[in-house]
Amino acid sequence: MRIAIAQLNLLVGDIEGNTQRVIDTALRLREQQADLVVFPELTLTGYPPEDLLFREECQQRVDAGLQRLLVEVSGITLVIGFPGVRDGRRYNMAAALRDGEVLTEYRKRELPNYSVFDERRYFSAGEGVGLFEQDGVTFSLAVCEDVWFDEPVADAVAAGARVVLNLNGSPFHRGKSAEREQAVSRLAKKHGVVIVYANQVGGQDELVFDGASFVAGNDGRVALHCRQFVEQEAIVELDAAATPLVAECAELLGPEAEIYQALVTGVRDYVRKNGFQGVVLGLSGGIDSALTLAVAVDALGAENVEVVLMPSRYTSDMSNEDAAEQARRMGVAYQTIPIEPAFNAFLDMLSDTFAGTETDVTEENIQARCRGVLLMAISNKRGRMLLTTGNKSEMSVGYATLYGDMNGGFAPLKDVPKLWVYRLSSWRNTVDPKQGEVIPKRVIDRPPSAELRPDQKDSDSLPDYDVLDPIIERYVEQDQSVDQIVAAGFERAIVERIVRLVDISEYKRRQAPPGIKITQRAYGRDRRYPIVNGF
Amino acid sequence: MRIAIAQLNLLVGDIEGNTQRVIDTALRLREQQADLVVFPELTLTGYPPEDLLFREECQQRVDAGLQRLLVEVSGITLVIGFPGVRDGRRYNMAAALRDGEVLTEYRKRELPNYSVFDERRYFSAGEGVGLFEQDGVTFSLAVCEDVWFDEPVADAVAAGARVVLNLNGSPFHRGKSAEREQAVSRLAKKHGVVIVYANQVGGQDELVFDGASFVAGNDGRVALHCRQFVEQEAIVELDAAATPLVAECAELLGPEAEIYQALVTGVRDYVRKNGFQGVVLGLSGGIDSALTLAVAVDALGAENVEVVLMPSRYTSDMSNEDAAEQARRMGVAYQTIPIEPAFNAFLDMLSDTFAGTETDVTEENIQARCRGVLLMAISNKRGRMLLTTGNKSEMSVGYATLYGDMNGGFAPLKDVPKLWVYRLSSWRNTVDPKQGEVIPKRVIDRPPSAELRPDQKDSDSLPDYDVLDPIIERYVEQDQSVDQIVAAGFERAIVERIVRLVDISEYKRRQAPPGIKITQRAYGRDRRYPIVNGF
Repeated sequence: MRIAIAQLNLLVGDIEGNTQRVIDTALRLREQQADLVVFPELTLTGYPPEDLLFREECQQRVDAGLQRLLVEVSGITLVIGFPGVRDGRRYNMAAALRDGEVLTEYRKRELPNYSVFDERRYFSAGEGVGLFEQDGVTFSLAVCEDVWFDEPVADAVAAGARVVLNLNGSPFHRGKSAEREQAVSRLAKKHGVVIVYANQVGGQDELVFDGASFVAGNDGRVALHCRQFVEQEAIVELDAAATPLVAECAELLGPEAEIYQALVTGVRDYVRKNGFQGVVLGLSGGIDSALTLAVAVDALGAENVEVVLMPSRYTSDMSNEDAAEQARRMGVAYQTIPIEPAFNAFLDMLSDTFAGTETDVTEENIQARCRGVLLMAISNKRGRMLLTTGNKSEMSVGYATLYGDMNGGFAPLKDVPKLWVYRLSSWRNTVDPKQGEVIPKRVIDRPPSAELRPDQKDSDSLPDYDVLDPIIERYVEQDQSVDQIVAAGFERAIVERIVRLVDISEYKRRQAPPGIKITQRAYGRDRRYPIVNGF
Repeated sequence: MRIAIAQLNLLVGDIEGNTQRVIDTALRLREQQADLVVFPELTLTGYPPEDLLFREECQQRVDAGLQRLLVEVSGITLVIGFPGVRDGRRYNMAAALRDGEVLTEYRKRELPNYSVFDERRYFSAGEGVGLFEQDGVTFSLAVCEDVWFDEPVADAVAAGARVVLNLNGSPFHRGKSAEREQAVSRLAKKHGVVIVYANQVGGQDELVFDGASFVAGNDGRVALHCRQFVEQEAIVELDAAATPLVAECAELLGPEAEIYQALVTGVRDYVRKNGFQGVVLGLSGGIDSALTLAVAVDALGAENVEVVLMPSRYTSDMSNEDAAEQARRMGVAYQTIPIEPAFNAFLDMLSDTFAGTETDVTEENIQARCRGVLLMAISNKRGRMLLTTGNKSEMSVGYATLYGDMNGGFAPLKDVPKLWVYRLSSWRNTVDPKQGEVIPKRVIDRPPSAELRPDQKDSDSLPDYDVLDPIIERYVEQDQSVDQIVAAGFERAIVERIVRLVDISEYKRRQAPPGIKITQRAYGRDRRYPIVNGF
């Protein structure tokens, strides 16, 4: 018996398009003698469909899609996911369909309502198991979170299931693929059941799905492993005892490659799925914009990326040279527009208003905002999405100008801490020996600076990143208190200052563009903090 | 027996401050011979505390606050709300404390996880009832949503309760106070039980709480009604049969007054609780900025508001005159800064890049962004929060410039449809006969225009607001389909266009400042839509 996994990149909300992809995929797999194919969670709507689920129209179109599948596909069992209303309640459902018949229906039991997930906003929890037989083997259905708990799998096995078919919409964060595989394999072994884990792939707003679908045998050994971040249709054979024969097993990517691919996938899908051909970004000669450019080019191709150098009186020659050099190495079009005329115009226009005041962060912000206006003008005129280049360390402490360098439709590095920006940049330089160092070494080596006043360095206002980043991780990702962080060896005054900066910068983050979640806890849906906050 | 309601404006996260307010309020009410006082939901953290609840430190500080209440208050029963961990799970709890003793504890049963609410993200659902006796009367506790369901109240009555003490964090939307009172009174009558409904008051980010606490007698008649949008401590007397004697009953505000007060409260608390003294805004001579100015002045006082007129080559004399006239009538400082120098500088700087292209929306956006840079510069320099002036109709269809007129820390009118902007403006002009028309009549009467190109009018790009607003309401607030809206009498081509504009503008709204929810469904936490959306 041949079981297929369809690791697809679906488009949220495009119910008709997703239905068509299910049909095309199933017919193609039938030609490869697959007997059954498992699709990702909520196949027909894509995941997560969010408040689209509240539209009556959404359910009607899903039901129409299901009808099409029953009519248009035969000779192969489809295991698909969809929202369904039963007894007046909405469920996150899976079903097995074959030759115009619904073999079984299943309602997701464990509804995640933490982190980025809001499933209890939309769904009621199901109960029971969803069994069906094919060629003498008893299969059961499960949806994502169900296999992170013991009970749903135990119940299925108790009811006679030999193979659990699990539909997933499991978003990426670093190291998660390995965790996922270990947890599910352990469960498979414990219950002596085969688990087929089919995950979606691709970017959806702040989330990236890495695929990495797999089959765990009833001895816990992995018999099939799909690649990360690419669409794949894979087939595993079950022998007469319903044991999977070992098929292709892709290795998991290393830590840098995994994150880098998540960024590339996130950018590609956000830009393309929103209907943009290309992007524009400001290149400063610093490492954040350098890495953003590399990601953008790897995602979209050099011909779909353009950069703008926008020097001011405070920009060093080194920055201009390095930015231009990088643009040349990456083969992207670049132009230089000095910001002085607009900056001077604003200073003149405000000279009466600001008479008698000291120069302060206001003037720095005006520079960043002049650049923001230029980039958005080019974005508007050319129909290219603006990428913003800030990293997670900056986003955390508010070291960024709202309506200035924070401008953009998407923020690829929003969840990438500065130390990881360095790691990824160095790693990217080693990927293709023929291409060589796409990010000039001097960009990696020089001390970081915003260049908004003479001789400015990040370290004037912030602790070194090897102090800052761990404090942010403890506070933001692990919810540690000041006392706990101090106990881990950090200076109290620094910790208190950073924690306060994180708290008072919430208003900036609320207006930041979406970015790609790559850590345990990103900003955005993943961390819901009050702005007015007396904690 | 004398029962008090403490309708307080608490500060989310300020656990020590809120604890102190409970103590001060209780001691004051004890002097007024109150025997018992009911505080709002999650009294000690304020509502909603959101992800602050995930910090261990938060729970520790709440527990310390509870200890203080047990030690420092005697001679009056405190009914307070707080998050509590019991048997390893977190609950949204209420307790009655008296003279160092916990009389009863209760765990909220019905956890809202819809609209702006995420309570299942934080809490497990409780069960059972929380009873205690005082002076021969059996009381039970309930938290907010519990009294929107029959069962929790029925269970309490079955267990012997004569009076249900209900702690609330029930946010405002228009007409909700009346609904609330009717629903709860019906329930009181049905079960023959007195319900004491204590709600918080004040603004918290996107939410405003209107208070309007009340007591419904066991015959369903309202015996006490607190005012909307102000802090109040009110006492009701129970006779020997535990029937409340009729006390002060404030009238609910009319439809315009209610919304206007919500806006004033929201602005005042967002600005003050975030530590800002005052605000700045751009005054265009149009009705949106006119109403925003009136709200800001009513919220903060004229001395804490300043306005900037920023005419361009397309600004009519009428706009300049009307804006200046309104500033004078409201008694606020104003200055005029024409945007031409910066606008011209940008056009020059971009002349090579844009050579051979047509003038389009890009140039309009540059004007809006020049204004945005000026306003943010003044905001930065003076430490005044920038208010953005856009309304819900614009926010819906994307008729606003990101990083331009959308700039600001807060958007008072974000959830106010344009037709309501007119209604509220006309109403505000009638409020104080001595003050007269604070919004010049010409501002209300002239056809709306963004003035970003010669002779531009909103109606060039959008249907009239009496067509646009109902379509938006049906689509956004009621989830109607295009077919349903057309069936209600709207032209299909217009409906399809508006629906599409709402969909493709989601990316702008995601970067908009928070605003005040006044309708059934606001943008923000209340409506969670994918940006990448193939629906």
